This record gives sequence, structure tokens and C-alpha cells, in this order.
Amino acid sequence: MNVTQMYRARQGEITPAMETVARSEQLEPEFVRSEVARGRMVITANINHKNLIPMGIGLNARCKINANIGNSKLSSGCKEELEKLDMAIRYGADTVMDLSTGEDINTIRQAIIDHSTVPIGTVPMYQAVEEIEDPLDLSGRKILDVIEQQARQGVDYMTVHCGILRQHIPMAMDRTTGIVSRGGSLMAQWMQRHEKENPIYEHYDELLEICQKYDVTLSLGDSLRPGCLADASDKAQLSELAILGELCKRAWEKDVQVMIEGPGHVPIDQIEYNVKKQMELCHEAPFYVLGPLVTDIAPGYDHITGAIGGALAAYYGVSMLCYVTPKEHLGLPNAEDVRNGIIAFKIAAHSANIARRFPGVRDRDDEMSKARFSFDWEKQFSLALDPERARQYRMESMPEELRNDCTTHHCSMCGPKFCSMNISHQIMDTAQNQ
Amino acid sequence: MNVTQMYRARQGEITPAMETVARSEQLEPEFVRSEVARGRMVITANINHKNLIPMGIGLNARCKINANIGNSKLSSGCKEELEKLDMAIRYGADTVMDLSTGEDINTIRQAIIDHSTVPIGTVPMYQAVEEIEDPLDLSGRKILDVIEQQARQGVDYMTVHCGILRQHIPMAMDRTTGIVSRGGSLMAQWMQRHEKENPIYEHYDELLEICQKYDVTLSLGDSLRPGCLADASDKAQLSELAILGELCKRAWEKDVQVMIEGPGHVPIDQIEYNVKKQMELCHEAPFYVLGPLVTDIAPGYDHITGAIGGALAAYYGVSMLCYVTPKEHLGLPNAEDVRNGIIAFKIAAHSANIARRFPGVRDRDDEMSKARFSFDWEKQFSLALDPERARQYRMESMPEELRNDCTTHHCSMCGPKFCSMNISHQIMDTAQNQ
Repeated sequence: MNVTQMYRARQGEITPAMETVARSEQLEPEFVRSEVARGRMVITANINHKNLIPMGIGLNARCKINANIGNSKLSSGCKEELEKLDMAIRYGADTVMDLSTGEDINTIRQAIIDHSTVPIGTVPMYQAVEEIEDPLDLSGRKILDVIEQQARQGVDYMTVHCGILRQHIPMAMDRTTGIVSRGGSLMAQWMQRHEKENPIYEHYDELLEICQKYDVTLSLGDSLRPGCLADASDKAQLSELAILGELCKRAWEKDVQVMIEGPGHVPIDQIEYNVKKQMELCHEAPFYVLGPLVTDIAPGYDHITGAIGGALAAYYGVSMLCYVTPKEHLGLPNAEDVRNGIIAFKIAAHSANIARRFPGVRDRDDEMSKARFSFDWEKQFSLALDPERARQYRMESMPEELRNDCTTHHCSMCGPKFCSMNISHQIMDTAQNQ
Repeated sequence: MNVTQMYRARQGEITPAMETVARSEQLEPEFVRSEVARGRMVITANINHKNLIPMGIGLNARCKINANIGNSKLSSGCKEELEKLDMAIRYGADTVMDLSTGEDINTIRQAIIDHSTVPIGTVPMYQAVEEIEDPLDLSGRKILDVIEQQARQGVDYMTVHCGILRQHIPMAMDRTTGIVSRGGSLMAQWMQRHEKENPIYEHYDELLEICQKYDVTLSLGDSLRPGCLADASDKAQLSELAILGELCKRAWEKDVQVMIEGPGHVPIDQIEYNVKKQMELCHEAPFYVLGPLVTDIAPGYDHITGAIGGALAAYYGVSMLCYVTPKEHLGLPNAEDVRNGIIAFKIAAHSANIARRFPGVRDRDDEMSKARFSFDWEKQFSLALDPERARQYRMESMPEELRNDCTTHHCSMCGPKFCSMNISHQIMDTAQNQ
């Protein structure tokens, strides 16, 4: 029995998951079904992820955001990761990737899946490498075993580095920052040392069988994404993208859902080209990009750098943005970094969704504007992407005696005499009386 | 004797200020002269601002950023404002506007001009209103007196609200957030109550004489800029913009330099239209926009919302971005907010300048990428827009024993085993040996 949403869509079935997606996107259920059938939308919903609220990712749905969490050998554990998960869901991450590479990978992942109502993604390669002595001892069998184990646990989508081939490695050798994908660099080294083709590429059909069995969505990783502006849109990146397009078609032949991962670091003037090229080479499969970062000189603020690139990418048709936190290029994010990264990317995705005029998406903005003009501070806080921070900033900038007074018809920016909204109300009143 | 840069440019003179601008922009001095002569570039340099380093703002120069500082009736004084000025210059503001509306306006402004190597802008209306009992007692004479006094002090550019006319007021009456410009709302109320035309519009020729005398650049304010997405690109906004285009021509006839101010709150899909429209109606005079903010629901993070809109606006040809701080819509920013606002807008302007391929502008990015790939942490910090924060984030996320070690070939994100750059080096070494 084939359980994938894609298979069922192709059989003409509107599944409960498709109905849920249709409701939340304000789309017709039949339209959702047809988008899933042709691969332009994925519903990342492993049959073993029991408490999941299904969610659609694709060109004709609102752009989503993903938050990466996970520990490393140097930092964090299960408690901290569940705290990050809570933070991520609370501030509006649409999916969460557990990228743990440290201790207790299996335990942490199970805890995360059990706690999460949003889809969980992983990069199985990390666990595979963690469980062997030397990354060079990796084998196709080992990777497939880990993938099957994670699929059984209920992972909804998985990044696999099967698009980087031996022929690509020389293309990356004169890059400014080489290969910056963790899984991609490990895979490249393995191919170089063994003088063999990419084992996940070689075992791709077996991989598809596992994905089909649990309805795991494949997220085809871009091992050769640029790690800096200087390497953007180069031959290495685009050659791998063409292979991802081929692998996408092979997955669709087996009714396996697919997303395509994308860069990375891209100057503003190359973002539209990158999105259009992906659509062309990968048959409009959902594009899932990391950032992209539009400058290299802002460590400590790369959530902003990435939000600029992400907003543009989403405007041009990217389906999901992977967030970047302020710690990018510097260290592993903590819970507060997760919060800052999520809000920055919520802003990026939401502002693009407004510009793409998805139904109902600007309503919250209009409500906020009305609350501003009526000095309804409590409503402004409740409509804010981060109510706690909005309240805190308002309070800390008011003079002592007004600190807890949320009824004033001004803030400390202009004070009562210069508040343009107050004056506007007076003008409107006078105009009505005239 | 006519002292303005525009007059001298039109006489064929390449002034020392133009030479300085040419050097910093990597442009030909004669090209700078011709841009100033035709009004497409301004050099905001009051003859009485003695320690100024001249700087060019225009379509064919790198996009600049402005930081607003200034106290309000509810908060801050001279000491705090000088602290904000230092912060602004340190983190790279190209100009600073003193928007004080509280106590000691004159003293604060003089202190700021004396301390500042970057151009200082003001909104003279604030002082004019502050010095009278009731804003409705304002007169053309009073405003001109304040403008002349500030010009004598050395203010390099001034926002004047002379484009909002009586005919425009009804257009703003059914807006969601009314008139959100402080000066604009005061002017509208004055016109409505007195049933007279805008006094600065009426006294425009006298205003131009003062500007000519000290070479004050006019920054024609957009009193009717939208205060929310719902009001963007409406009739009120565009009708005023057409008047600003007329006033621009009249200023150029007297060799007075002009910038045009712009929104505000604009959805991503309307930004290009707004920039092109301004160029058309205002004869390519430098466009100086506030943000623009691309969503209304992110109070506490509007520096990010504005950086997204600003990057796009700059990419389409805006000449200067006025920053927005995290406190926007909530209160008066403090020094830390100024820092966050500046860095966000440096990112926006710089990433647009890269995309517009101004000479040499990407060099720092490429140096940063090389420093990353060679694990030269100290160089990474020194090339960062905010060196202190980059260092702090790196340190706080490393384990205790490595906290002060900036020689490691990894960070806490991936740890030593999974560092893709490390693996890339190994791959490159092997490739070379093969």
C-alpha cells in the first residue's frame, strides 16, 4: 500500500491533511490536491508523527520558515533543545530541523518529535557519521539504516546530500570558501578518498523506497551552495542543481515528495535569477533556501542579512526560508538567538506573502494599523510578532510615572505635544464639524 | 556671491568638496561636478559647519544612511545625545539628524554640530513650535527666523514641510492612520484652522535665499507619507510628491541643492514603483526614504522590517536611507537602539551597493570570506560592521576552556569534526597532491 500524500493526490483523493492545508491557506481542497499531485506543493507528514498539524509548502502557498535547532559536540543537551523547540513554535516557526551532531542524538530527536506539532526535519548524515569512528568508513548501507531508523521515529523530512557527484569536486577547488555544507563536504571527501561515486546517489532507489514507506519528504541538499558572495551562482552550484532536478523527477516517479534546497550567500541582484533557475531545472518543486545572505560583513547580525535576502527570495517564489540566527558564522545559537532568528524570518516571509497578495495575509497588518491609530496599546502588543518585546520596549522608554500606563495617547518618541496621530484625530474631528 | 556647491558646479568649478567626494566614491571629479550641477547629487555642506568631511548623496553614488537622534519632552538631554552621536558615527552613519523636541534644543544642536564630522540635518519646524505657546500661533516669519538661525549655526540640511497644501488635507481624511509626519500634521492643522495656504510654501522664495546664503541643502519632507501598508501609494502621498517635484525645480533655479523625502510604510511589491515615480516627478533629485517598512506587525523589530524595504529601495536607486530603530512605534531610542538601527541599515545600504556594483564596494566582503576560510578570527572581527558584537558572540558560545582562544579552526556551531571549511581544506590538499 502506498501511503504518500503525493500518491493519494494522484489517485484523486483529498486527504484530511490536504483539507487542513486548504483551510489554513484559504485555498480550495481540490487545488491543494492538484498541487501535491504535480509536486508543486509538499505536505511534510510522516505517518508516524502522530501529533502533527499538517502544513503545506509550495509556490502557491504562503512562504514558510524553518528554525534549525540541535546540539553540537561543544554545546547543549536535551533540555536546552526542548527549550529551543518551545521557543521556535511559540514565535511561529512552521517547521523545525533537529541538526544535532553531539551527544544523545536519538533521545533528543525522539523527544523533539514527541513534543512537536510542526513538521520535524533532520540531516541523517550527521547521525551516520557520529556513529562511526571515521567519516571515511561511511557506507551506503549505514546511511540507509540511519534514514530508515529516523523515518520510523517519525521524521517528516530529511536533507540528503545525493546531488553532489565526483565530477563536481574539481569545480569547487578554486572557490573562495570551498564547500560549506557540512554533509556535502563529508560526502566530497568520501568520494575523493575512495575514488567512488556518491553512495546516496548510488542507493537512491532504495532511499526512495524508505521515503515512500513512511511518507518522508526528501529535501535534496545543495552540498555546493556558495559560502560567500564571491562563490555565488558559480558552475559548481548550478551543476549540482541540474542533478537535483533529475533526482526530483525520479522521486516523483515513485510518488515521493520533494523539496530542493538552495543558497546560501547571494548578492541581491542574483536572487531572482537563482529562484527562476531552480524552477526551470527542478520543475517547480518547492524551493527551500538558507537565507540567502546578501553581504558577508555582518557577523552578529546575519539574521538581518538573511531576512533581506529571504524576503526577496520569497517574493520571487521561494516556498520556505531556513532562518539564520545572529550567531551564524560565530557559534551555536541559544534560545534567545532562536527567538531573534525566527522573528527576523517571520518578517521576511510575511512581508513577501503580503506582496504576493495571498488571501487574508495582510489582515493582521491592517488591524495593527487601526490599533495604532486608536492608541490601543494592548491590542498592538497582542498583534505583534513578539508581544513580550514590544511591551518591554514601550515600557522601558516611558518615564517612570507612566511606565505601566498603557492608556496614554502618545509614546516617548514624540511626547504628547508632537504626536502626529493625536493631531490627525483633531484634524479629522474639525473636518467633520466643518 | 553665491556659495552653493550647485552654483559653483554650474560655473564649471570642481570644488575641494567635490574632489573629496570623488575620492571616497571612486568617481571622476568632473563626473561629480556634473552630477551636482544637474541636481542628481547633493553635497550637504553648510559653509559654517567647519569640521565636516564632505560627502555626496545621489543616484550615482553609494547609498548612504542617516541616523536620527534628538531628545523629546519625555526623555534624554545633551549628554545622552552626544553619546548617541558618537555611537552613530562609530558604527557608520553617513549623516545624523538632530530631531530634538525637548529642552535645550539650541545648546544640543550646537554641541552636535561642533562634534560632528558628518553632515547634520534638522527639522526646524520642531524648534519653531517649541518656542511658541500654541502651534497654531506659528507664522511664516517665525519659521524663517528659526531656519536662518539654524543655518547660521551650520546645519547642513533641513527638512521643510512645504509640499503639503490645503488641497491635500481632504485626501488624508479617510486614511487608516491619518497624517503620520509630525511636521506635516502640525502644518495641516494650521492650514485647516486658519483657512490659509501652507506658510512655508508661501514663503518658499525667502527660504531659498537663506539656503543659498549658507548652502543649506533642502530636504523636501513628505508630510503625507503613508503610516501603514493600507495607506501606501495613495492619492495624498502622490499628489504631494508632484508638488515636491515643482519645488525642486524652483530650488534648482536658485542653485539650491535638494533632496526629496519618501515613505515610510510600503509593501515589497510597491517599492520599485515608488522609486521610479519619484525619479519621474522629481527629476532624479536624490531620494531619501524612511525605511520603508514592509509590514506593520513587527514592533520591537522595525529596524529589520525597515532594512528589508531599505535594501530594496536602495537597489532600485534610492540615494539615502533614514534608519529605523527597534523602538520605532514604541518609544524614543537609546544609544543601544541607535547601534542596532545603524547596523541594520548599513547592511541594507551595503548589500544594495554591492548589487548595484559600485567600484570597490564588495572588496571588504571578499576579504571577510578569505578570513573565514583561513580561520583568521581577529581579521573577521576587524572587518565586521560591529567588531565588538562579533567577538562577544563568538566568545559566549564557545566552551569555557576555549573562550579566549581565537586560533581554533572551528566554532561551536559544528565543532571540530564537522567543520566544512576544515574538511574543504583537506579536500583541496588531497586534490593538489593527486
